[in-house]
Amino acid sequence: MPLDLSRYLKERCDLIDRRLETALPAADEFPYSLHRSMRYSTFAGGKRIRPILLLAASEAVGGDVSAALPAACAMEMIHTYSLIHDDLPAMDNDDYRRGKPTNHKVFGEAVAILAGDALLTQAFILLSSPVFVASFPPGRIFGVINEMAAAAGSRGMVGGQIVDMESEGKQDLDLPTVQFIHTHKTGALIKAAIKCGALLAGADARQVEALNRYGEAVGLAFQIYDDILDIEGTTAEIGKDAGSDQARGKATYPAVIGLKESRRRAAELLDMALEAIADFDVQAEPLREIARYVLSRKS
Amino acid sequence: MPLDLSRYLKERCDLIDRRLETALPAADEFPYSLHRSMRYSTFAGGKRIRPILLLAASEAVGGDVSAALPAACAMEMIHTYSLIHDDLPAMDNDDYRRGKPTNHKVFGEAVAILAGDALLTQAFILLSSPVFVASFPPGRIFGVINEMAAAAGSRGMVGGQIVDMESEGKQDLDLPTVQFIHTHKTGALIKAAIKCGALLAGADARQVEALNRYGEAVGLAFQIYDDILDIEGTTAEIGKDAGSDQARGKATYPAVIGLKESRRRAAELLDMALEAIADFDVQAEPLREIARYVLSRKS
Repeated sequence: MPLDLSRYLKERCDLIDRRLETALPAADEFPYSLHRSMRYSTFAGGKRIRPILLLAASEAVGGDVSAALPAACAMEMIHTYSLIHDDLPAMDNDDYRRGKPTNHKVFGEAVAILAGDALLTQAFILLSSPVFVASFPPGRIFGVINEMAAAAGSRGMVGGQIVDMESEGKQDLDLPTVQFIHTHKTGALIKAAIKCGALLAGADARQVEALNRYGEAVGLAFQIYDDILDIEGTTAEIGKDAGSDQARGKATYPAVIGLKESRRRAAELLDMALEAIADFDVQAEPLREIARYVLSRKS
Repeated sequence: MPLDLSRYLKERCDLIDRRLETALPAADEFPYSLHRSMRYSTFAGGKRIRPILLLAASEAVGGDVSAALPAACAMEMIHTYSLIHDDLPAMDNDDYRRGKPTNHKVFGEAVAILAGDALLTQAFILLSSPVFVASFPPGRIFGVINEMAAAAGSRGMVGGQIVDMESEGKQDLDLPTVQFIHTHKTGALIKAAIKCGALLAGADARQVEALNRYGEAVGLAFQIYDDILDIEGTTAEIGKDAGSDQARGKATYPAVIGLKESRRRAAELLDMALEAIADFDVQAEPLREIARYVLSRKS
């Protein structure tokens, strides 16, 4: 029976949302503005791609999805913090995200900065929480914390964001720079999600290597396709202004190698991702379907 | 032989600085602006009180100072990130800190936000690094990560900062609010430093409890004395404008209970701190001297 992907995504999304609900301080816990702000962006309609990939990678090597859930939620908290900070006036200065006012438009800049800080911190509270650390051998937990932190840090996501900022509006951006931005700003966290899922499930070295290649390809394809969507999507579909990357002189694949070649690369990366996990069994079916979905989504 | 505190502080400071030097990406590692910005604030002349307290607490219960060093450095990274973000235009909007231009004045707002983010993240990279986790039983490491994250998060330091922001310029601030700000914004991290040192050294429940009481008292005394210094110190001594808290309508102890009563409380807290560790042996002498120093320093 083929996998019903949209049902699978919905179920996983619900599972993650329910756990996030309890993993964050309640909206009526003091200081209210901070906790409301943290929850506002966490529950602003994200597709939960990263935590879903983490769970799917764990599943692909026979891991326990329910035990891995805190790691998935930590991943989503880190992703959410990065969106809040990226949207700030000093950064991309975005007023809308997923069709809703950005965090600082609702709560003000100071609260938005602190809510981002607190979400990043909350991820590590969760990753070191007694119930999570009791579910796996210690070495796996240390691996996950280290992998996630490294992917989020100056040699990963934050490094990518700064180069993205500094490249804005520059003429003659070269492909290596755009590739650096994409593999760091978006790719690092996606790749880490998959690796963390594999680590928690106790994947062997060969499996980790295969899933790493899958993660690398999917992470880059995801961002290239995002660039394509920004040009081709409608504003209603993508929840922010279509063409906003172009208008801002953002470093994108289409801007550097053109739309047609960007499409070709994305398709090539999809093939590489599928090839990397070709000899995995049926438990890897969600990973395969998610890779295909990444390059067919409308937003 | 009595402890030569200034020499002790200097030696520990050097030890911590040397380790921080290698625990942060080099200034010539790409992306340059980010790594330079992270290093600029880390090496901007901090007194390293928090990491010194962590090591001293470890020492007080017979722990290995050298093995605990990564935790001490992680603590200082979290403290440094909080200073960078607190100084931002959207927050306290400070141009100077310790007599030097603040991070965003040198590197710009975007880089400052990201450098803070990356420093916070780097703390958890360090706390989960193979060399550190191999030095202690796993349970102690998890305890330290959880303690440090909780102290830094929305129920700790960030929670205190937001209430501080929201209280600014308000009339009729009450003592419970000021106490909330101080115990969270400054106290939580200081208390956590001491607890983490104790945990790493394998302190027993009674020792942890005693050190917790010490940490709580010293953390609050430290901040009350900071408030007093802001009024009584000269600008040259404290490295920022003297009286700046008053001018800004900051929630401080002297503003709410007066200077004389603030002094009395700080002295009382010092006594409580010393009393808490009264039956510790000579290895706790640094903790005792540091507590006295906290209430006699000029900056």
